[in-house]
Amino acid sequence: MPKTMLAVVKPEAKPGVELRDVAIPSFGSSDVLVRVKVASVCGTDLHIYNWDAWAQRRIRPPLIPGHEFCGEVAEVGREVTTVKPGDFVSAEMHVACGKCFQCRIGEAHICQNVRIIGVDSDGAFAEYVRIPESNIWKIDPAIPAEYASVLDPLGNAVHTVLAGPIAGRTVAVTGCGPIGLFAIAVARAVGATQVFAVEVNQHRRKLAEKMRADLVLNPATDDVKARIFDATDGVGADVVLEMSGHPDGIRTAFDVVRRGGRLSLLGLTSKPISLNFSEDIIFKGITIQGINGRRMYETWYQMTALLKSGKLDLHPVITDRLSMRDFDKGMERLQTGEASKILLYPNGVK
Amino acid sequence: MPKTMLAVVKPEAKPGVELRDVAIPSFGSSDVLVRVKVASVCGTDLHIYNWDAWAQRRIRPPLIPGHEFCGEVAEVGREVTTVKPGDFVSAEMHVACGKCFQCRIGEAHICQNVRIIGVDSDGAFAEYVRIPESNIWKIDPAIPAEYASVLDPLGNAVHTVLAGPIAGRTVAVTGCGPIGLFAIAVARAVGATQVFAVEVNQHRRKLAEKMRADLVLNPATDDVKARIFDATDGVGADVVLEMSGHPDGIRTAFDVVRRGGRLSLLGLTSKPISLNFSEDIIFKGITIQGINGRRMYETWYQMTALLKSGKLDLHPVITDRLSMRDFDKGMERLQTGEASKILLYPNGVK
Amino acid sequence: MPKTMLAVVKPEAKPGVELRDVAIPSFGSSDVLVRVKVASVCGTDLHIYNWDAWAQRRIRPPLIPGHEFCGEVAEVGREVTTVKPGDFVSAEMHVACGKCFQCRIGEAHICQNVRIIGVDSDGAFAEYVRIPESNIWKIDPAIPAEYASVLDPLGNAVHTVLAGPIAGRTVAVTGCGPIGLFAIAVARAVGATQVFAVEVNQHRRKLAEKMRADLVLNPATDDVKARIFDATDGVGADVVLEMSGHPDGIRTAFDVVRRGGRLSLLGLTSKPISLNFSEDIIFKGITIQGINGRRMYETWYQMTALLKSGKLDLHPVITDRLSMRDFDKGMERLQTGEASKILLYPNGVK
Amino acid sequence: MPKTMLAVVKPEAKPGVELRDVAIPSFGSSDVLVRVKVASVCGTDLHIYNWDAWAQRRIRPPLIPGHEFCGEVAEVGREVTTVKPGDFVSAEMHVACGKCFQCRIGEAHICQNVRIIGVDSDGAFAEYVRIPESNIWKIDPAIPAEYASVLDPLGNAVHTVLAGPIAGRTVAVTGCGPIGLFAIAVARAVGATQVFAVEVNQHRRKLAEKMRADLVLNPATDDVKARIFDATDGVGADVVLEMSGHPDGIRTAFDVVRRGGRLSLLGLTSKPISLNFSEDIIFKGITIQGINGRRMYETWYQMTALLKSGKLDLHPVITDRLSMRDFDKGMERLQTGEASKILLYPNGVK
Repeated sequence: MPKTMLAVVKPEAKPGVELRDVAIPSFGSSDVLVRVKVASVCGTDLHIYNWDAWAQRRIRPPLIPGHEFCGEVAEVGREVTTVKPGDFVSAEMHVACGKCFQCRIGEAHICQNVRIIGVDSDGAFAEYVRIPESNIWKIDPAIPAEYASVLDPLGNAVHTVLAGPIAGRTVAVTGCGPIGLFAIAVARAVGATQVFAVEVNQHRRKLAEKMRADLVLNPATDDVKARIFDATDGVGADVVLEMSGHPDGIRTAFDVVRRGGRLSLLGLTSKPISLNFSEDIIFKGITIQGINGRRMYETWYQMTALLKSGKLDLHPVITDRLSMRDFDKGMERLQTGEASKILLYPNGVK
Repeated sequence: MPKTMLAVVKPEAKPGVELRDVAIPSFGSSDVLVRVKVASVCGTDLHIYNWDAWAQRRIRPPLIPGHEFCGEVAEVGREVTTVKPGDFVSAEMHVACGKCFQCRIGEAHICQNVRIIGVDSDGAFAEYVRIPESNIWKIDPAIPAEYASVLDPLGNAVHTVLAGPIAGRTVAVTGCGPIGLFAIAVARAVGATQVFAVEVNQHRRKLAEKMRADLVLNPATDDVKARIFDATDGVGADVVLEMSGHPDGIRTAFDVVRRGGRLSLLGLTSKPISLNFSEDIIFKGITIQGINGRRMYETWYQMTALLKSGKLDLHPVITDRLSMRDFDKGMERLQTGEASKILLYPNGVK
Repeated sequence: MPKTMLAVVKPEAKPGVELRDVAIPSFGSSDVLVRVKVASVCGTDLHIYNWDAWAQRRIRPPLIPGHEFCGEVAEVGREVTTVKPGDFVSAEMHVACGKCFQCRIGEAHICQNVRIIGVDSDGAFAEYVRIPESNIWKIDPAIPAEYASVLDPLGNAVHTVLAGPIAGRTVAVTGCGPIGLFAIAVARAVGATQVFAVEVNQHRRKLAEKMRADLVLNPATDDVKARIFDATDGVGADVVLEMSGHPDGIRTAFDVVRRGGRLSLLGLTSKPISLNFSEDIIFKGITIQGINGRRMYETWYQMTALLKSGKLDLHPVITDRLSMRDFDKGMERLQTGEASKILLYPNGVK
Repeated sequence: MPKTMLAVVKPEAKPGVELRDVAIPSFGSSDVLVRVKVASVCGTDLHIYNWDAWAQRRIRPPLIPGHEFCGEVAEVGREVTTVKPGDFVSAEMHVACGKCFQCRIGEAHICQNVRIIGVDSDGAFAEYVRIPESNIWKIDPAIPAEYASVLDPLGNAVHTVLAGPIAGRTVAVTGCGPIGLFAIAVARAVGATQVFAVEVNQHRRKLAEKMRADLVLNPATDDVKARIFDATDGVGADVVLEMSGHPDGIRTAFDVVRRGGRLSLLGLTSKPISLNFSEDIIFKGITIQGINGRRMYETWYQMTALLKSGKLDLHPVITDRLSMRDFDKGMERLQTGEASKILLYPNGVK
């Protein structure tokens, strides 16, 4: 066992990161030390990299970011019983307190005191990461490492899609970043009968087609509302999954959801959104859900079962594979809007 | 059987109404003619009276308004089988088409083609009103006529309260007009463990106290959020029922609902509302419901069973009893904000 | 328009049927007369044919049986608005009263006063059948007639599968008659991650394999419980769909459902079943559902959307295509246990 | 702090118990040592006392039984953060493993590896009892100690009543032991509009009346089914809570539940029960639930909120108050069928 490891570090309160050789994390009696095999990049990591307003408020450098990954158990604390060295694992990086009201009624995904590994403490953009046993997720070796590294955002998609009935229903996805693209695949796999994808970026629309959305619409040129009402016999979409966080995407979401339909919101917004409550919500009798994280651990069971059964083809979403040493290049690719999900390999792309 | 009857008529497209002697409605083979015993006044009737923007768009005079009432069956069409002359009845005044998608999946309360008696056709501010048999609701004579005349708004309250789990939970009601006041009584009757009422108008706050809300708050002088978080061990209200339609009430609703809580919207808004989706909805993982009308006819069974079991004391809400001939006076009382629910008697107050 | 038609008739209270030339049904102002294109045979029809104890209690000859079919609208009553001659249709043959408690709360599929066309009045084993407009189901011409003729049993399967969460879950189907086979296809289409089929009849096991069940078990030779627990990491099946009605199938159903799982019962039993409530139900905390008919009309929307989207391959279930004149031969095939779903063509197989 | 304590001990594999002076339990870093204030007796304790077949299979003497109690925190392990000495507490005595599938999806009340304090390890019929912090439930001092000592069975009742919709519905309770009696109070408090109690024992029927059941029926002399259908306009009971575990009670439960109703089973059976699945379950389209324990910890929040709000009057159920030294006398009282809930005080009745 080496003493140090390569890590991507946000060293201080400013834009950018550094590649550093740092000490391998120590771990306690109920912790698991994981050797990272593949990590993947989230939009949050770009916020941290760019050191935007949100990052300035939330992040306390120095920090190793990274909260999407899979790897192999390297060592375990002495009280750990559910995994052993060599096991293939990922982890839920939201560490819930276990003691607040929400945790005690089975809603740990909205814990009042949650701390996120890779945001509030050192994460997975490194050769090793420390995870409490409670948050470790053991993975069937039949699941490819590339998929195992994106369970965090895939879990967002599964949580959103399955937050209400979906089989035999029509679904619109507004915003086709990685989670929106995953949601297309998940919705199809669980019996959505038509999936409409709405996205302005042409690279993402291409990917939505590859994910086999039934209808891919460009709000800049298509009459999205008319097209979706046409395709649904004038009813509208039964379920709308808002994944853009953009005022236009949200406007579309309210426009296309049918009377009595479900609108699940995942995309984070940066500005206030204005609504006509009477027309947009009350007369239509719709239900709106705020979706956060993944259910612990029902979503994890669902998504790994879906992956293992071969029902999800996620390959189109993975656009880039880089060595972790090329982290800056990954950030660049993300900024262009051309990349979707970027995978990072600590010891070079395999 | 007389040929004509007294009716409150909106004769043409302008403010005000007239008292007139008009023909008793004709009725078809599947219709029921009801002799009105008590009718009650809704905020919608004030909009029609004042001839505001909404009324100008929706109402086609001449019209007899009125959609809350009870009475006695006078005559029935030849195909009617479920009621007979002399039966004590009220009615669901939303006439659903029965053929649209929503109607056929059991969501008739959000029918695409709904027409409202008393809004789109002649209503109950008269001695007689015609109702299709499908919409007649037979009432146990054990239920007092005063209560039977307010089943429409009571049904709104029951539908809202029971739109999700409520037993053992804390409930905040923002806005204490008649439906908000009814909701306090209903929430208490179905096991809400604390009911918080939020209202600026002092007359309404008095009524909220009479309805036995556990905590009645004045947003002009109380720190509503702090008070509700204090009373709930820092958790917030499990369920919030928004009955005001006012931007301040809605703001309060989002502020006091707990992480993972339910926010049911009934109060109609007249202006756009601005929200921070990330903070107000997504991170908190709340569910928002638009509530319209009453479920046909599940809500009707629920509310009449609750009334019959004696679990609801609605008397404080009924503040005024007038002869139908004093309709103008009723409108005046409503404008002052001092009256809550006003009952009208076609043949003088009994 | 001819005056008479070919029909399969149960002429009197004894086994067998006769082929007869009978008058084309008259129809009322809200009825639809349909020219049958394809009808299909249900186990119930065999009970009527054999004149068993159930049939003797329920059936009042003379009767034209048949409650699974599709066809073309021939004529419509003068009040009919939703279909016109030439439309491609099927029908819900359970005619609900619309006035009982269950009907009025949206549970018409368990109406207290239901009457079944083809059981309580003349059905679809004829060239023409009369259907009330309320029960007509218009079909997208994109759906093949063979599938359109089996919407009744497919609806049973869809209703059963979707009576609770299914995506990301494991499902066991005990009993692989036509509805069990359909249920395999539906479960796969809506995200079940493993489908276990349990069946003693080898013909049916072959069909279960063709329907792509993940594991097809023979209770005569396989240790069904052990195999299913093995395949589910010792947890058991999340969902069990009991489609056999046989004591052994039911015993297996209780044995393999996981703690907290769902057991949906559709297969009708002819003898009492004995259970250890403490061990079989209470300690395991399971939920058992009695499933009857199809939800009106939510199930119909779901299944036609699933069919139209191409998610269901039902072909293996359709084993026989016969002229309606060969009805006796169809009954024979059914008795052997070799046939699954048998289609009948009024004017010869096309 | 003393070294020894009084305890009720099952010393070896035979009927009866002994009062002994034993060592106060040691406790680990995450344990809480509670000084018992009031304990209460469950039917399970009588099984252990009588050393019946179930007890012989499950219990490993020596054992201190007792799993219903409240008390004051005496000492806490060094990692305990949520309670401190002097706090008023009770506890969930089902200790879930936290690692099985059911635990990880929020169904810990049906944990595969549950161990029960007072059954599988030393319990609360003693001056002190050791509880893991995870299972401690802090109680508002406003709740009387008598009620705090019966949270375990009250939780069974709350879990059963709230396992489905109840407001505005009719409820039948078959079997009026302590949990059945509690269920009457809970059902009333959460909006059941009529509660029917069915019980053969006259002492228990008296208590059911004191709990304010709307109709108390004696199956030995009343036509229970006819009376309940009469009282529900021929519909039957919306919800049936089976609390007897007796074949006759279970038969009644199936007879009186309405089409589409809910039947929740809590009463443990000692013999097989025979059912006609077609008539009893499938055609009626009912849902049957096995109910085990209490939801961790949603039920605990619900019941303590209900208690604190003053909505539950449980006094009639508490029929006996004894010194713990009079344990034998308590067992005697229970055998007669005259006692309902018996409270035990370690240091004499207060």
